[in-house]
Amino acid sequence: MRCIGPHPINVLMNIEQQFADLHDLWSPRVIGRVNDQYVKIAKLKGEFTWHKHDDEDEMFLVVKGRLRIQFEDGDVELGSGDFHIVPKGVRHNPVADEECWIMLIETVTTKHTGDVVSPLTRTIEQQLGQ
Amino acid sequence: MRCIGPHPINVLMNIEQQFADLHDLWSPRVIGRVNDQYVKIAKLKGEFTWHKHDDEDEMFLVVKGRLRIQFEDGDVELGSGDFHIVPKGVRHNPVADEECWIMLIETVTTKHTGDVVSPLTRTIEQQLGQ
Repeated sequence: MRCIGPHPINVLMNIEQQFADLHDLWSPRVIGRVNDQYVKIAKLKGEFTWHKHDDEDEMFLVVKGRLRIQFEDGDVELGSGDFHIVPKGVRHNPVADEECWIMLIETVTTKHTGDVVSPLTRTIEQQLGQ
Repeated sequence: MRCIGPHPINVLMNIEQQFADLHDLWSPRVIGRVNDQYVKIAKLKGEFTWHKHDDEDEMFLVVKGRLRIQFEDGDVELGSGDFHIVPKGVRHNPVADEECWIMLIETVTTKHTGDVVSPLTRTIEQQLGQ
């Protein structure tokens, strides 16, 4: 495995292998950093929590399963290979009726549950595996 | 199709459908923007050109096929589902022996061929389909 660059997490990685090592639901794992953005993966099942990120967009790419992102003006339904970028400041709530695997792109400052704290909230240290 | 947020390109999209509409090789297409990063797709075949981006990391995720990224100190070989983040300032040269489909995450200011200009160079306007 080749490890280069300023970010020690940036080795050559395989998405499927990363998911195989991730067992907890709603617990994003940072798997890379590109500029000021973290690349994360997460496994979801059930309902998350309504929240927003005042200053950061958030990209959701569904790798496996289906994800519904609830917005105040309607839902977006994503299947495998679909992606959607939630703009900053927009309240949303991810819901997965069955287990769903996603890749996320988020600014490094993004808080997991944004403007709220819930029992599901994970710190960035937890997401970095520290 | 739902179109929301400050970036009109950010609709719900499917990666496979975007690739189906992309025909030119080495001609990235912007398919989304998350914060200060563009999400792009590209089809590659053959050799690109040696270059670097002084101020920007660049993430390569292989969606289909195989990609070799040549570095001055060795190559990185990527198959489907593999990703690698090329750190800013590092000279590299993507090579695909067979057609390869990739997703890219790059800062909006990133120039296609970095510090060089080649016949393959595409402007950001071309990548935005303008």
